[in-house]
Amino acid sequence: MTTDAPQHPVDRGQPGDTLATVADRLQAPLVEVLETQRAVRRLLPDDVDDAIVLRCIELALRAPTGSNGQNWEFVVVRDAEVKAKLAHRYAQAWRLYGAAGERMTAGDESMRKVLAAVAWQVEHFTELPVLVVACLRSTGSSGRVPYVPLPHIANTSYFGSIYPSVQNLLLAARALGLGASLITLPLWSVTSARSILGLPLSVTPCAVVPLGWPRGRYGPTTRRPVGEVVHLDRWGTQPWR
Amino acid sequence: MTTDAPQHPVDRGQPGDTLATVADRLQAPLVEVLETQRAVRRLLPDDVDDAIVLRCIELALRAPTGSNGQNWEFVVVRDAEVKAKLAHRYAQAWRLYGAAGERMTAGDESMRKVLAAVAWQVEHFTELPVLVVACLRSTGSSGRVPYVPLPHIANTSYFGSIYPSVQNLLLAARALGLGASLITLPLWSVTSARSILGLPLSVTPCAVVPLGWPRGRYGPTTRRPVGEVVHLDRWGTQPWR
Repeated sequence: MTTDAPQHPVDRGQPGDTLATVADRLQAPLVEVLETQRAVRRLLPDDVDDAIVLRCIELALRAPTGSNGQNWEFVVVRDAEVKAKLAHRYAQAWRLYGAAGERMTAGDESMRKVLAAVAWQVEHFTELPVLVVACLRSTGSSGRVPYVPLPHIANTSYFGSIYPSVQNLLLAARALGLGASLITLPLWSVTSARSILGLPLSVTPCAVVPLGWPRGRYGPTTRRPVGEVVHLDRWGTQPWR
Repeated sequence: MTTDAPQHPVDRGQPGDTLATVADRLQAPLVEVLETQRAVRRLLPDDVDDAIVLRCIELALRAPTGSNGQNWEFVVVRDAEVKAKLAHRYAQAWRLYGAAGERMTAGDESMRKVLAAVAWQVEHFTELPVLVVACLRSTGSSGRVPYVPLPHIANTSYFGSIYPSVQNLLLAARALGLGASLITLPLWSVTSARSILGLPLSVTPCAVVPLGWPRGRYGPTTRRPVGEVVHLDRWGTQPWR
């Protein structure tokens, strides 16, 4: 089964775009958005309208949550001081992580490009126009607690209640012509992240999505062929390999 | 910013649909797929072609992974015996979880409907045509390990490498006209799930997505208004409430 969708037909947005133009892009075919999604880390400092950011989050809220808990909260960061504090934590983690990454991926050209893009993002973090921090409440203010009785289930169900919405956010951003990426390093110290964002102990920051108009082009991504990652009934039976 | 997309324009599929018809549905506008996604647990026992299942997984693979590790593996379960073993574990967990759920959501009509649909799914689990089990390798066969130095980051990055792809799978299934849902209870015992699926210790099953042609209609979902879950710069500042 194939689709004839062209490779990169979804438009790239830019600062002057009107809200109507941007909104219309959400009509892009699903398959084209899925197939052209990629991390875009180098962003212009130009503003992104609140309406655009809120529309992305509104679509993020259509995703499923465990026990339909809807226990998500999103902090939209525009304040320079808050950005600077998160940037400081990101840079701390990057000093460890980036160096390890460079050692472990030596000679891998595609990973070298990823690391260079992340390094750019770390350095320019305070200039990114909007950061969206996706969080989970551990108990619902509605009293509708996502109750989970067993440890592995608890863990996977917990994060399974935020990352589908984060993916919706990324897909909406892609369709709207924004650059976006999914990062976690600025949150390496949960205590510090809570303090920076004023979060109560019952709210855990899980991921950060910087949003802005892209500097460069959306390049293609490469993936392992589907037959390599699919097993039939039991591990190791790979009829589509 | 609003869009004029109608509420439920994306078609519901059925067993007789040709592959071409089904494939064409991936051209559905992103916004309509996002806005009409919902868990559909009551499925027909009729077969779903391998090509359709593989196309869903192929689109799942477009999602991001931590450090671009692409350390996902998907087990497509069609075998009656494997389904029966997973059904047994699902029923065990449901006896605890369902009873707790009924106590905790007494008087909540929408949750009563969710619990009834899950109860149906537990009872008919072996009749569902396809189960997709989304798994993560903890070390990459390619040697490209998603290396993560710090505990909270490790945990959120780990699940952040599988749930975006699971959400893509759910969105593709929605567009294609399939019924799908995101569940974790059949995996409550990781040891047992590994044994049932023949997974090595380095592979962890994270979520199950049953796929099939829907029995009922896709109803609407309800969500909290976006202004209620969005904070500006710091927790509690809610200008869009």
